Amino acid sequence: MTTSIVLFGSTGSVGVNTLRVVETFPDRFQVIGLTAWTNHRLLERQIRRFNPRVVAVADEQVAGPLRRRCRDLKVTIGCGIEGMTRVASMPEAQVAVSAIVGAAGLIPTLAAIQSGKQIALANKETLVMAGELVMRAARARGVAIIPVDSEHSAIFQLLNGQRRQDLRRLLLTASGGPLLRLPLARQARVTPEQALRHPNWKMGPKITIDSATLMNKGLEVIEARWLFDVEPERVDVVIHPQSIVHSLVEYQDGAMLAQLGMPDMRGPIAYALSFPERLALPIPSLDLARARSLTFERPNRKQFPCLGYAYDALREGGTMPAVLNAANEEAVWAFLDHRIPFPTISRVIRSAMKAHDVKPVYEVADVMAADRWAREKARQVMRISRT
Amino acid sequence: MTTSIVLFGSTGSVGVNTLRVVETFPDRFQVIGLTAWTNHRLLERQIRRFNPRVVAVADEQVAGPLRRRCRDLKVTIGCGIEGMTRVASMPEAQVAVSAIVGAAGLIPTLAAIQSGKQIALANKETLVMAGELVMRAARARGVAIIPVDSEHSAIFQLLNGQRRQDLRRLLLTASGGPLLRLPLARQARVTPEQALRHPNWKMGPKITIDSATLMNKGLEVIEARWLFDVEPERVDVVIHPQSIVHSLVEYQDGAMLAQLGMPDMRGPIAYALSFPERLALPIPSLDLARARSLTFERPNRKQFPCLGYAYDALREGGTMPAVLNAANEEAVWAFLDHRIPFPTISRVIRSAMKAHDVKPVYEVADVMAADRWAREKARQVMRISRT
Repeated sequence: MTTSIVLFGSTGSVGVNTLRVVETFPDRFQVIGLTAWTNHRLLERQIRRFNPRVVAVADEQVAGPLRRRCRDLKVTIGCGIEGMTRVASMPEAQVAVSAIVGAAGLIPTLAAIQSGKQIALANKETLVMAGELVMRAARARGVAIIPVDSEHSAIFQLLNGQRRQDLRRLLLTASGGPLLRLPLARQARVTPEQALRHPNWKMGPKITIDSATLMNKGLEVIEARWLFDVEPERVDVVIHPQSIVHSLVEYQDGAMLAQLGMPDMRGPIAYALSFPERLALPIPSLDLARARSLTFERPNRKQFPCLGYAYDALREGGTMPAVLNAANEEAVWAFLDHRIPFPTISRVIRSAMKAHDVKPVYEVADVMAADRWAREKARQVMRISRT
Repeated sequence: MTTSIVLFGSTGSVGVNTLRVVETFPDRFQVIGLTAWTNHRLLERQIRRFNPRVVAVADEQVAGPLRRRCRDLKVTIGCGIEGMTRVASMPEAQVAVSAIVGAAGLIPTLAAIQSGKQIALANKETLVMAGELVMRAARARGVAIIPVDSEHSAIFQLLNGQRRQDLRRLLLTASGGPLLRLPLARQARVTPEQALRHPNWKMGPKITIDSATLMNKGLEVIEARWLFDVEPERVDVVIHPQSIVHSLVEYQDGAMLAQLGMPDMRGPIAYALSFPERLALPIPSLDLARARSLTFERPNRKQFPCLGYAYDALREGGTMPAVLNAANEEAVWAFLDHRIPFPTISRVIRSAMKAHDVKPVYEVADVMAADRWAREKARQVMRISRT
């Protein structure tokens, strides 16, 4: 049986790894739709290699030249929201891989849910911004959302075959990122290049900075709250610098279950594509005896204020998580662009959250409005902080 | 719903912990049958506390005085194989806890299987000696065998909800016991008192010595082979001195699942009694951040020859595992009795195995004959080694 896949964000880190999995199992998977933003060179190579029928990119400026270069191929190239929605709605696809980075992932993911596809979800923002809405839509449509994040994939795997009513808590592991041992006082001088040197995982720049601030873990706490329908108090975070244990689940009899493995994104990606089956991936066995020792520590909330802000946003609910996320996104890109120093990232988020009047979320428009408001606010805060 | 339980070996370590679990959940469990060997003082207290209807002990010498002291109670006290079988066959019991130490556990466990009870299995020898027979009997009678060993309970928990055909291997953890860091050359001077000081678990003397020789892990490899129906090559052992990770399972996608927790036998006991439910046990959460780091190492086969003998016995099959087990049992009791030095334990086992003509196992009598032969052989070897 071949599974037909549409892939949102094919030129990003998760997108590229998804295509590696597809290449490894050509009889199992077929890619029929691809989307990317502006990386048309890589996208063209992917189109030639995987022969999707429909493709979408950011806008006509990207689409036009790509169409001309792909004249020899039978592929329809669209753009913008309309193009993305067309890919999301392809009726022949069983699975949609949502691997766009940032808030832009929400709309195509919702469109894919509404068209009844199983979702392999790598885009955090979908659940951070609109978790309640999205999970409600998935339930209504009878669609499974299977996480691609290594942490949530671990928890998804560990909840399987266990009684949900016996659950005590979820425990997300965090590597602590590249700045774990950096004293607070020296954070001000961190360059983007330093913050991008993640010790264990090769990921895109946005998520790597989010690892350095621990905001990545904060976003994952929010994601876990919705994905697994657990109260925020039951989601804990523990620092585990070796990134071998991908996350844990604790039951009321005191038993903890953990998922471990070599840090390789193909594991959770393949699992989300083939669940409940596990494919024989070319990932070497983890040799525990050769692994350094596994250590765990409590996160330092002073060193990593962003983690606390994520819990705050969850507690306040409504539009606040969308504000947290948008302010963070603006601040991270500004830091990567050398426009603000590292410690300002968390300050921007705090300022935006403080200034925000929380509103309830009835529909996606409410979330998008909060997102826009928070981006404007964040930019305003950053302009002020630079003067 | 109350589960009625018969408990074999109530005065041993697993037996006592089983009764602690029953005491914690008086509405869930009821003990209607107890057996013990000779510890009549503790047994009398247990009878008065739990009001079983039927009890069995070793022989008339123990049964007679106990009957007189329990005259005021409505309890039938039998003895020997007949008495044990009577308890094993009580039709009102849903679960039989098999917690007798040693080869003596086999017959009552088989009787309980034949009478259709779910088995909570702590007695290793049942599967070591007659794994194929016992599992066949359980399948024929539609009886579930749920392990109580922390290692096998861990694996049982981790296989749940996963596809068996995706399994790559089982990985049993071993603390390495009290002599892990003792150089080979100094093993000759180890006293029973030193070898009984297990770093993590409070267990009976036989199993604690088996931990010191790693024979305990060897027996568990054999148990796992039958309990989970996996080839011996797929069962590995890793030393994990902290005894926090109770065992692991690896799947073909490279994912490993582990079960962790505080070392407390009530966890696996309660799980075996209430599966698939998990009871809210008064066992504290494992605080990973306070745990020392978790380390893993390959077992040193020279330092611990018994582990290799267990794999040899599995490979040779037939009556050989029963010989391994019986020779070990004789040697361990002799060591505890100060009759042989520590390194002689493994030598006795090797001599008995070398001298044994493997025969196929068609029925329990074949196993019992091999058991008797091996005990005689072991005693003979020990007499020679002392002269």
